[in-house]
Amino acid sequence: MEKGQHIATAFDRDLETIEALLARMGGLVEVAIMDAIRALETRDAELAAAVRQGDKAIDALEQQIDAEAARLIALRAPAAADLRTVLAAMKIAAALERCGDYAKNLAKRSTVLAALPAIEGGAGSIRRMGDAVRLQMKNVLDAFIRRDAVLAERVRQDDHDIDQMYNTLFREFLTYMMEDPRAISACMHLHFIAKNIERMGDHVTSIAEQVIYLVTGALPDDERPKADHTSQPPDAQPQGGIWQSTP
Amino acid sequence: MEKGQHIATAFDRDLETIEALLARMGGLVEVAIMDAIRALETRDAELAAAVRQGDKAIDALEQQIDAEAARLIALRAPAAADLRTVLAAMKIAAALERCGDYAKNLAKRSTVLAALPAIEGGAGSIRRMGDAVRLQMKNVLDAFIRRDAVLAERVRQDDHDIDQMYNTLFREFLTYMMEDPRAISACMHLHFIAKNIERMGDHVTSIAEQVIYLVTGALPDDERPKADHTSQPPDAQPQGGIWQSTP
Repeated sequence: MEKGQHIATAFDRDLETIEALLARMGGLVEVAIMDAIRALETRDAELAAAVRQGDKAIDALEQQIDAEAARLIALRAPAAADLRTVLAAMKIAAALERCGDYAKNLAKRSTVLAALPAIEGGAGSIRRMGDAVRLQMKNVLDAFIRRDAVLAERVRQDDHDIDQMYNTLFREFLTYMMEDPRAISACMHLHFIAKNIERMGDHVTSIAEQVIYLVTGALPDDERPKADHTSQPPDAQPQGGIWQSTP
Repeated sequence: MEKGQHIATAFDRDLETIEALLARMGGLVEVAIMDAIRALETRDAELAAAVRQGDKAIDALEQQIDAEAARLIALRAPAAADLRTVLAAMKIAAALERCGDYAKNLAKRSTVLAALPAIEGGAGSIRRMGDAVRLQMKNVLDAFIRRDAVLAERVRQDDHDIDQMYNTLFREFLTYMMEDPRAISACMHLHFIAKNIERMGDHVTSIAEQVIYLVTGALPDDERPKADHTSQPPDAQPQGGIWQSTP
């Protein structure tokens, strides 16, 4: 059901509370990603520490969303379509929490990397990946709030670009490592960071699929064009939508 | 509320259906991990392909559990404590689904590794990590079914061992790579596999924390003794239980 098609109810107001919390959570995660990458580029240990500390607030928001969702379900006994929306909000919060964890991990590694020789161009490539995933995250949350399946589908398709960036980086780092064994440690950490950003992209995609399912009632039926070829690769593969057999 | 404290209701029967699905899902994931690692050790491309194919059944079970849970909530309007149990079951299914994805990824990498020079002792160390995480997974699902907080706490503490195994492997692979650049590609993939098993351990821990919260009503308040020191590391860090402010 599209928002606005029915008269605002107590359920709608409760749902708006949850949506506002999700928007805040998304904002915090975007900032965490940006700051973690800046800490990596500028070797700023203090900023990295702030990102690590800030993850607690993101975790707390997920718990708050779960609590609000459980309260809403218990109090309002929502009908099937509304219940799906609430459960989707919980899934989206869980995906954002994982992205926050990845940002925290990135900040930790930036501290380790600061003690290792710099890899030319490494931080810049990471930043471009990070910028791309932040934009995707912003768009997919907009798509959820507006129940915009077209935007969600675009986000889903655009994940391809992030996968491509990751593939390029993987090959680049492998080459560096082979050329210079002293670069191995730093490249391993940079590579992990790239992989974690690629995984954030997968979580964003899974949010996009939740939105598409909520709006259209159907999952996108093509397999998402998955483009990590480093190893016939990764799999933070979103498992698509849910509740297909819900009455 | 402990199972058995109240007379069996329609809710209980529905919940048992969900628990049976979870048990089946856990069994499939355990087998997927075991087979993926065997495929790695024996360079068995057919077995690896079967694991990749089998992940669809695991994903389908998660969708079925979500659907059953949504149906149960809509039909039975469970009270707060029962609602928490249902939502916990959904979270556990999501954690198992991730573990299944990691097993699928492992199988994919085993195919790539089959074309690369073997790393002495690599597959054996991976197998020991895999065995450890499978045992943990079995125990934590038992803990959920029996609402056994003591067992769940033991699982939570034992994750330390898997983290230690990962740390050892990380250093080992780094050494190999520095000694012999021809080993770099294979070590990168093996290292990814080790990391993914370590992440499965984190998901198992997050299930353990759900169980502890369900049974005792409180989250374990000590930070889990996290022992991946490769980089002040990883973070698939479970975010603890949920619904703390639920009425």
